[in-house]
Amino acid sequence: MPPAIVLLSGGLDSATTLAIARTTGRPCHALSFRYGQRHQHELTLARRLATTLGAVRHLVVDIDLAQFGGSALTADIEVPKDRPVEAMADEIPVTYVPARNTVFLSYALAYAEVSGADEIYLGVNAVDYSGYPDCRPAFIEAFERMANLATKAGVEGQGLRIQAPLLHLTKADIIRRGLELGVDYGSTSTCYDPDDEGRACGRCDACTLRLRAFAELGLRDPAPYRGVES
Amino acid sequence: MPPAIVLLSGGLDSATTLAIARTTGRPCHALSFRYGQRHQHELTLARRLATTLGAVRHLVVDIDLAQFGGSALTADIEVPKDRPVEAMADEIPVTYVPARNTVFLSYALAYAEVSGADEIYLGVNAVDYSGYPDCRPAFIEAFERMANLATKAGVEGQGLRIQAPLLHLTKADIIRRGLELGVDYGSTSTCYDPDDEGRACGRCDACTLRLRAFAELGLRDPAPYRGVES
Repeated sequence: MPPAIVLLSGGLDSATTLAIARTTGRPCHALSFRYGQRHQHELTLARRLATTLGAVRHLVVDIDLAQFGGSALTADIEVPKDRPVEAMADEIPVTYVPARNTVFLSYALAYAEVSGADEIYLGVNAVDYSGYPDCRPAFIEAFERMANLATKAGVEGQGLRIQAPLLHLTKADIIRRGLELGVDYGSTSTCYDPDDEGRACGRCDACTLRLRAFAELGLRDPAPYRGVES
Repeated sequence: MPPAIVLLSGGLDSATTLAIARTTGRPCHALSFRYGQRHQHELTLARRLATTLGAVRHLVVDIDLAQFGGSALTADIEVPKDRPVEAMADEIPVTYVPARNTVFLSYALAYAEVSGADEIYLGVNAVDYSGYPDCRPAFIEAFERMANLATKAGVEGQGLRIQAPLLHLTKADIIRRGLELGVDYGSTSTCYDPDDEGRACGRCDACTLRLRAFAELGLRDPAPYRGVES
């Protein structure tokens, strides 16, 4: 069976995506990025998740999106806090990193081509998508089409599929599925503004959506939050 | 007028493309990559060309495609020499770098979004395309479509065009157009296997196509070749 490439950030969504990719029986190559994000903690978690979830290899690629600027995640812009969920989908937030998923998927495409992979997995989600344009189904479809025209595998070979298994799931559905597959959510971090020890803020858009989902399931989020006893 | 992003490798095609982009009156931001290519000389030429052709800015981004391996341009695979022109289009050559144009265009897309650019220029060419899948018109169109779905500018704003002005020109037409616009081809390098002083081999696919084009025009290529008196 050909391998799969799995984009792994260290967050809840990508951890669940890796667990789902593993159920296909494909050897999974996890791919993470050091992309000028202000917090390196998520790479430590990604490394741990790659091992515990059974990836055959984990590659961390350095890319420099920060030199372009333009995002609260890579530049010195304040992360918004305490926004109601309803307000999140109204506009593209300042935490949007320009063309991030396009750049990440392009690297995954290069890696897929070299390793003979026929699938690329990413954990985007259209339900709780927080207003990012590159998390929508139309974007994923357009990338797949482009990828098959761009590459030797697409032109001469087996073709390539972009798999986004969380696309139409709610955050609560994602967590439920991940728990079935044994994902340790205590080792995932979703926060846009964690402290130096990696404890989540509990108030940014990502934390708000995550905490609401655990609450819906009647569960306690096992990840560390600042100001909360663990 | 909004700016344009121009991919600039230091080669004949991208130099001509920058000169053409400048004729639109757009402020041009040149973008080059240090991508694990074995030869750094082309970046020196790119820097010189950005200045002489009037780019307002020149950004060199470090990217690491070499860690994926798989190409004669980034790994230790021999560059083919003395191939007849007719044989070049038959197959995808070993000098193909997996997903290279996809990765380059993805960075250009991030840069375009942050700088407010509405056009991205690249010097791909479908006539003398040497068998690379990511130099074909269908790829360019698919990338543009994806780019407009991926970005804030595409979703909310002015949209983005991928301009490939050399796409349907022969190499001789490209040189003719560049000479009209004052491109100094002595400062461009196309060779896949230059020596340490940046002198071209004269025998790889890229050199073969370039030398044939200058010969068709009855001109001498002003670039330095090894074993040839300049």
